[in-house]
Amino acid sequence: MSIVVRDKATYHRQTSERMELFLDVPEWSDRQKLALACRILAMEGHDSGLAGQLTARGPQPGTYYMLRFGLGLDEASASNLLLVDDDLNVLEGEGMPNPSNRFHLWIYRKKSSVNSIVHTHPPHVSALSMIGVPLVVSHMDSSLFFEDCAWLREWPGTPIGDEEGRIISEAIGDKKAILLAHHGQLAACDTVQHAAVLAMFLERAAKLQLMAMSAGTILPIDPALAQEAHDYRHKPKAIAATFAYYARRALRQDRTALD
Amino acid sequence: MSIVVRDKATYHRQTSERMELFLDVPEWSDRQKLALACRILAMEGHDSGLAGQLTARGPQPGTYYMLRFGLGLDEASASNLLLVDDDLNVLEGEGMPNPSNRFHLWIYRKKSSVNSIVHTHPPHVSALSMIGVPLVVSHMDSSLFFEDCAWLREWPGTPIGDEEGRIISEAIGDKKAILLAHHGQLAACDTVQHAAVLAMFLERAAKLQLMAMSAGTILPIDPALAQEAHDYRHKPKAIAATFAYYARRALRQDRTALD
Amino acid sequence: MSIVVRDKATYHRQTSERMELFLDVPEWSDRQKLALACRILAMEGHDSGLAGQLTARGPQPGTYYMLRFGLGLDEASASNLLLVDDDLNVLEGEGMPNPSNRFHLWIYRKKSSVNSIVHTHPPHVSALSMIGVPLVVSHMDSSLFFEDCAWLREWPGTPIGDEEGRIISEAIGDKKAILLAHHGQLAACDTVQHAAVLAMFLERAAKLQLMAMSAGTILPIDPALAQEAHDYRHKPKAIAATFAYYARRALRQDRTALD
Amino acid sequence: MSIVVRDKATYHRQTSERMELFLDVPEWSDRQKLALACRILAMEGHDSGLAGQLTARGPQPGTYYMLRFGLGLDEASASNLLLVDDDLNVLEGEGMPNPSNRFHLWIYRKKSSVNSIVHTHPPHVSALSMIGVPLVVSHMDSSLFFEDCAWLREWPGTPIGDEEGRIISEAIGDKKAILLAHHGQLAACDTVQHAAVLAMFLERAAKLQLMAMSAGTILPIDPALAQEAHDYRHKPKAIAATFAYYARRALRQDRTALD
Repeated sequence: MSIVVRDKATYHRQTSERMELFLDVPEWSDRQKLALACRILAMEGHDSGLAGQLTARGPQPGTYYMLRFGLGLDEASASNLLLVDDDLNVLEGEGMPNPSNRFHLWIYRKKSSVNSIVHTHPPHVSALSMIGVPLVVSHMDSSLFFEDCAWLREWPGTPIGDEEGRIISEAIGDKKAILLAHHGQLAACDTVQHAAVLAMFLERAAKLQLMAMSAGTILPIDPALAQEAHDYRHKPKAIAATFAYYARRALRQDRTALD
Repeated sequence: MSIVVRDKATYHRQTSERMELFLDVPEWSDRQKLALACRILAMEGHDSGLAGQLTARGPQPGTYYMLRFGLGLDEASASNLLLVDDDLNVLEGEGMPNPSNRFHLWIYRKKSSVNSIVHTHPPHVSALSMIGVPLVVSHMDSSLFFEDCAWLREWPGTPIGDEEGRIISEAIGDKKAILLAHHGQLAACDTVQHAAVLAMFLERAAKLQLMAMSAGTILPIDPALAQEAHDYRHKPKAIAATFAYYARRALRQDRTALD
Repeated sequence: MSIVVRDKATYHRQTSERMELFLDVPEWSDRQKLALACRILAMEGHDSGLAGQLTARGPQPGTYYMLRFGLGLDEASASNLLLVDDDLNVLEGEGMPNPSNRFHLWIYRKKSSVNSIVHTHPPHVSALSMIGVPLVVSHMDSSLFFEDCAWLREWPGTPIGDEEGRIISEAIGDKKAILLAHHGQLAACDTVQHAAVLAMFLERAAKLQLMAMSAGTILPIDPALAQEAHDYRHKPKAIAATFAYYARRALRQDRTALD
Repeated sequence: MSIVVRDKATYHRQTSERMELFLDVPEWSDRQKLALACRILAMEGHDSGLAGQLTARGPQPGTYYMLRFGLGLDEASASNLLLVDDDLNVLEGEGMPNPSNRFHLWIYRKKSSVNSIVHTHPPHVSALSMIGVPLVVSHMDSSLFFEDCAWLREWPGTPIGDEEGRIISEAIGDKKAILLAHHGQLAACDTVQHAAVLAMFLERAAKLQLMAMSAGTILPIDPALAQEAHDYRHKPKAIAATFAYYARRALRQDRTALD
């Protein structure tokens, strides 16, 4: 058999075309997507009591979907999400939102391209956030964050005020994610799926980094290859297919997220 | 849309009011609360054989609820708890209490504000207790313990005697929690829910600390912000809602705790 | 209420009496105990492929119960255990024993007080076995092994031969447990329950030690207190009750161990 | 009772004979074996989103079975595997293969003895791959990889191109496994079972190594004994029985792999 050798650009093109053609992604409502994102992160161990907030823009400008305060990530469902206004007043649903969601509003105001924010305090990111180092990209799977994860080096305190919102919304700059010192992580993206997948893999990247730092010295990778891998991993259809896979896993445990 | 910027005190006040109004907490009996606390800590991995004791004041002065010795935390239910007197003699129920509960009695005698004690030997606190360092608060979620976790630096031995009770009851001082060298942890609080939530998060704080220490050097946080976060996290309604959330999780696995 | 203060010897005596009186332990056959021990260690994560062997003396001198080679610890049941002779020939049951069980025979021959041997390669003991350090007792729960865990510093190779049996049976000396360099752990005791409980807690002790060593320097504990805790933890009724508790947990998952 | 002492070669011979006689291994189709391998590695925590590819030679030369891109390892079943040609064009089944499987083709072309490749990015191998060290064999259970795990020290980038295939297929040389820097691991073997068992134990070996390096300095083992243990562990019947054991575990959770 003769071997055809092609340049890599050809394969990148072919891959993008085939992904569009072959990767099937379910149709979910915005509420369902946000509830599924909560369930996926619960399954990934992002629970930290009632902390951790996932939000998305609502049907009208200046409205947002978010979880009712008092529910855990594993209890989210399409119907128990609140719709709130730009001052955290409830428009639809019962109860109150997490008061710490105020800083999300500052990001939404500042970045019109952001439609969903996932903010959690998962254990490995939390531990990493205590030792004064940024996220290091030294693995292909962490390349999602190559030059795409900001770092807020100081902790401005419990983010229920406006000042904390101003600080965090500036610190993220034009990146899609941010490591928050002494606090946790945040992903702010165009879609719920994108923010949820980044949140999952940011915690996994922090886990790799902590294990590697405990055992030795992390080596750098070639920036050009890291950038190529970053772009490959952020293809919208690949992100959506990854989200859909973890959503199926969450739904195999419990289908109530869709209710 | 105009942005209203308020000072943080306003948000703290608003949050307290909304929590009172909106956070619903189930009505459970004292026995049910204590059994649920056992199940929650079992779920959190606090099991260490038959060690680990959760107790609460009983209906009469000088009476206490506690688990029957021989049962694990995951086997507690409202009806299988013992009621004992101030010398560990059984007043209601069958079997014997854990002889190590004697030191709980010393704390109850010394601190009238304490209505429940949760003492466990979970793995991360246990490992931390071996290396001669106190709990370090360097994360927002650990701020529950800011200036509120004592440290007993010497291990007085198996706590089945009176001397150990005297030592531990003095060492905790006016804090709500204590790290016990070569032994484990203890939270002594006004309610079962409060003690259980502190116990959960003390083990999680120890896990963060161990991971962070293995990978680098832990940085301090601003004491004023840590104190603010501490007070925010200890709001009674937030503690009760956190307990209620984990109780629902435990009950989804198995409802026998309430029997 | 007047406080009666007693010396610790009184409490030790009282505890022993109450344990005899109040701790109920089920009646299981020898086969059932061994199968339950397998299930408990499977639940504790001791699986290492087909490695790991639990054995017990059989009904006649020079006969032994052991798992059929090819089955995992989580597949053991009373009826699928083999009975073999002192040369690993099968007397009852189908299949072959694990050829590595040969070194168990050497221990049984040398130590007539030993009625059961539990040998596994759990992850934390395995990692500890690679770095040339013995088990360190620096926690109350690890005091089970105070002056009671030998250390074989060299790995004699795959233990399917007689020479390895001779080496290991000498190295354990008069201790109840041994850490085997580059290999795993072993507990050799008077009862299946005792060996199984030691095996569980030896792996847990190794986990604490690894976590503590990764984060800092382990401090010693007072030898007299460690000895007192050791003796307290080895009380036969406490061991049997601990085994019974974990057996109930295993049986809640799956009752086939008793078949 | 007289003790017969034999030389170790006798026991090795006896063990091989008994394994052939007594170890029963189920008859599965090639598709079923590959789907079971996927399920086993999912159960072992090898999931890394949609990354990780398991492949096997198909019924005709130049054809290969592989998972449909978009499915996770825990979703593989005999019927949803694709059959593709030597240029990743789909011959049977719906959807597209993982574009990164291109480098598998290079290994199959180069090594005619290889009938199955298992490539994953499990967490401990991934962390190890970041710190510039090879796999170290210092434990009996890791001896599977003694002189049998190559190391690619540089990361050539996302392996969707031909150049990456050429590099990896050369780097593995005559070893059965390879650690891929900043990327993951690969096992290339004569059977699906062999590749799957190596993949499982390579991740476990990396976990031991990371834990050991975090806590201390890993000591070497005797090369001759390591070689003996390697050969013992690679006996085809033992490999097949190990695979069969984990397959039963996977099937107890969910039998759809066989569909």
